Amino acid sequence: MPPAISLITLLTDFGDRDGFVGSMKGVMLNINPHARIVDLSHQVAPHQIEEAAYLLKSSYRYFPDGTIHVAVVDPGVGSARRPLLVSTSRYYFLAPDNGLLTDIVHEELSVEVRRIENKQYRLDAEGATFDGRDLFAPAAAWLTRGQAPGTFGPLIQDVTRLPSHESVWEGSTFVGRIVYVDRFGNLISNIMPSHLSEIRRHSKRTSVVIRIVGKTIEDLTPCYADGSSGEPCALINSNGHVEVFVKEGSAATMLKAGRGERIEIT
Amino acid sequence: MPPAISLITLLTDFGDRDGFVGSMKGVMLNINPHARIVDLSHQVAPHQIEEAAYLLKSSYRYFPDGTIHVAVVDPGVGSARRPLLVSTSRYYFLAPDNGLLTDIVHEELSVEVRRIENKQYRLDAEGATFDGRDLFAPAAAWLTRGQAPGTFGPLIQDVTRLPSHESVWEGSTFVGRIVYVDRFGNLISNIMPSHLSEIRRHSKRTSVVIRIVGKTIEDLTPCYADGSSGEPCALINSNGHVEVFVKEGSAATMLKAGRGERIEIT
Amino acid sequence: MPPAISLITLLTDFGDRDGFVGSMKGVMLNINPHARIVDLSHQVAPHQIEEAAYLLKSSYRYFPDGTIHVAVVDPGVGSARRPLLVSTSRYYFLAPDNGLLTDIVHEELSVEVRRIENKQYRLDAEGATFDGRDLFAPAAAWLTRGQAPGTFGPLIQDVTRLPSHESVWEGSTFVGRIVYVDRFGNLISNIMPSHLSEIRRHSKRTSVVIRIVGKTIEDLTPCYADGSSGEPCALINSNGHVEVFVKEGSAATMLKAGRGERIEIT
Repeated sequence: MPPAISLITLLTDFGDRDGFVGSMKGVMLNINPHARIVDLSHQVAPHQIEEAAYLLKSSYRYFPDGTIHVAVVDPGVGSARRPLLVSTSRYYFLAPDNGLLTDIVHEELSVEVRRIENKQYRLDAEGATFDGRDLFAPAAAWLTRGQAPGTFGPLIQDVTRLPSHESVWEGSTFVGRIVYVDRFGNLISNIMPSHLSEIRRHSKRTSVVIRIVGKTIEDLTPCYADGSSGEPCALINSNGHVEVFVKEGSAATMLKAGRGERIEIT
Repeated sequence: MPPAISLITLLTDFGDRDGFVGSMKGVMLNINPHARIVDLSHQVAPHQIEEAAYLLKSSYRYFPDGTIHVAVVDPGVGSARRPLLVSTSRYYFLAPDNGLLTDIVHEELSVEVRRIENKQYRLDAEGATFDGRDLFAPAAAWLTRGQAPGTFGPLIQDVTRLPSHESVWEGSTFVGRIVYVDRFGNLISNIMPSHLSEIRRHSKRTSVVIRIVGKTIEDLTPCYADGSSGEPCALINSNGHVEVFVKEGSAATMLKAGRGERIEIT
Repeated sequence: MPPAISLITLLTDFGDRDGFVGSMKGVMLNINPHARIVDLSHQVAPHQIEEAAYLLKSSYRYFPDGTIHVAVVDPGVGSARRPLLVSTSRYYFLAPDNGLLTDIVHEELSVEVRRIENKQYRLDAEGATFDGRDLFAPAAAWLTRGQAPGTFGPLIQDVTRLPSHESVWEGSTFVGRIVYVDRFGNLISNIMPSHLSEIRRHSKRTSVVIRIVGKTIEDLTPCYADGSSGEPCALINSNGHVEVFVKEGSAATMLKAGRGERIEIT
């Protein structure tokens, strides 16, 4: 169980226009006026669980121990999908059981997963359409007031997992996918340094060759400023992923590529 | 008079790009470094007072008693329109007198309306174009420091009201309007549960039929996940309004409908 | 050296979608959980240093003494460009040495510029692409914990300056440029009240005539509400700049003008 702290992060697909996030913050501050709330992102594309999973994985570990991470991308709100409270050795996570926490459950230590079902911590409000405000926000705020995880609901064993975009060997070619496109048009793949080590052992060479939408990139570059202008380059990005970029331009635009695009390394 | 607290919410049409909101926060923190500031939204469409009024009404009641709600959508800034300080039994509201607070004055208890005119609480800055920073922000911050509402200006009686989009009976058909379109393309009407009760009493049936842009929706659905894919459905949304949606799609796009669109219930 | 305070502002071109800013806040709160962080803007156009410089200049002075302003628009990240810590009589500023702080160094008093190079205050993370998270965020947080500026690195004398868009006399015409376009489509020039005094002394008249893209604007208007509908007007904006606007419309759209556009005053 992580230490008590009053820091909550929010990650949603609610946008910043419609007041949804403001209402969530109101609910939390009404329960604990001393809670501190930090926005991770509210611009996840509507209903894109995998995009949210990448963003959560990229950010959560920078926060202090005891931080409560609330992630609500929830196309199944109001249906039978279960609301989860996950506690690990360092953090709490609250999210619908739709795969959003797949990486967390895989990466973190001392993982305990509970189904949130205690109605005492639920806001009694209109409609069944806004669990972000009525269920997740109050649960997070009550956690900051020291409520033990066990009071929210029973432990469960099975957790919904995302269909994985696993990277695989096809003969002597290692094949991954683009999992995220950021605002600079950088194409972020699911290929990590551990895969690169494997590829180098396989090829017995230190350099690698990357192929994406018919273009060939000769080896990795240390940083954006070292890229050649006007052509696609690749580097290990700040979250440890292989990323394709165009110096002072957009790789997504130049290559007409997006999430799901195939990337090969040899 | 609400209890003293140091929580301020902000609702504006200033966007998040131009630093307007940052300057307002700087002014407030300069007067009270302990003030806590929460953004409701800064993405109100420029000058759209009714949009801001809907957002404020949807969010304000979730905040702790004593919260100071600052709403600045102010096409008349610099003209003779009056800056208002409204205190109710639970909250303070600061806004230009242009109809933005119509619902608040109608819904809240122990409403007192003052015209802000004490220049002592005004920032002495360049231009007459930014009352958000120069008038509303300092007034809110001084309130968190315990200044009594009476010190800001005299009570007034007449408050500007929005031209109302009232829902009405036309024969045996109840007619309302779409008052807000959210980021998911959901069409939010001004029809509330009290109207539905009236409609059901009138028709002597528990189910209702909804018509919008020539489409017919047979009765309300409990939640988004229960909607039929690819066609318009309706539910009571999380603020108690009748809302038209398309499951995992956009009702605004599918129906080519927006704010002001007519909606009928029988 | 400014007084110790735990207030940090952030200005970046990272957007609000990709979790970059959330990670920076996590790093800062991990070092000092009591730090308070305010967003100035994260919507600077990618790599547009001059836009960031205008926004910083417009906002920084409203914050309490001791505030730490972090500005990261950094196309050269990972290259030899230097990270700077500037202390003045009132504030700290952290930014890459690419011209972003030109106006600050010019306007503020008791300016001391240091190169940040102490690796002890740097986050040990993957890649060389995210100094916002790995270098500037931790440096700002350690400043709030009372680390003296001298511990971050040595004083330097030469600072990179922006190529200036100076306003100049061409015969009896004073010529400036549009330096920023805000969300309302207002065109903000680099002409200030001191220039207007000079122009009035030169012409021996109190009124001025403004020309932009072939349109003539007869004199300045006190506020937006006083503008004539449907035609371009001008006023002194809330930051003291001459600004061209269209009442309840967009001057940028109507005049098809943007950053860099020539503006003349006689």
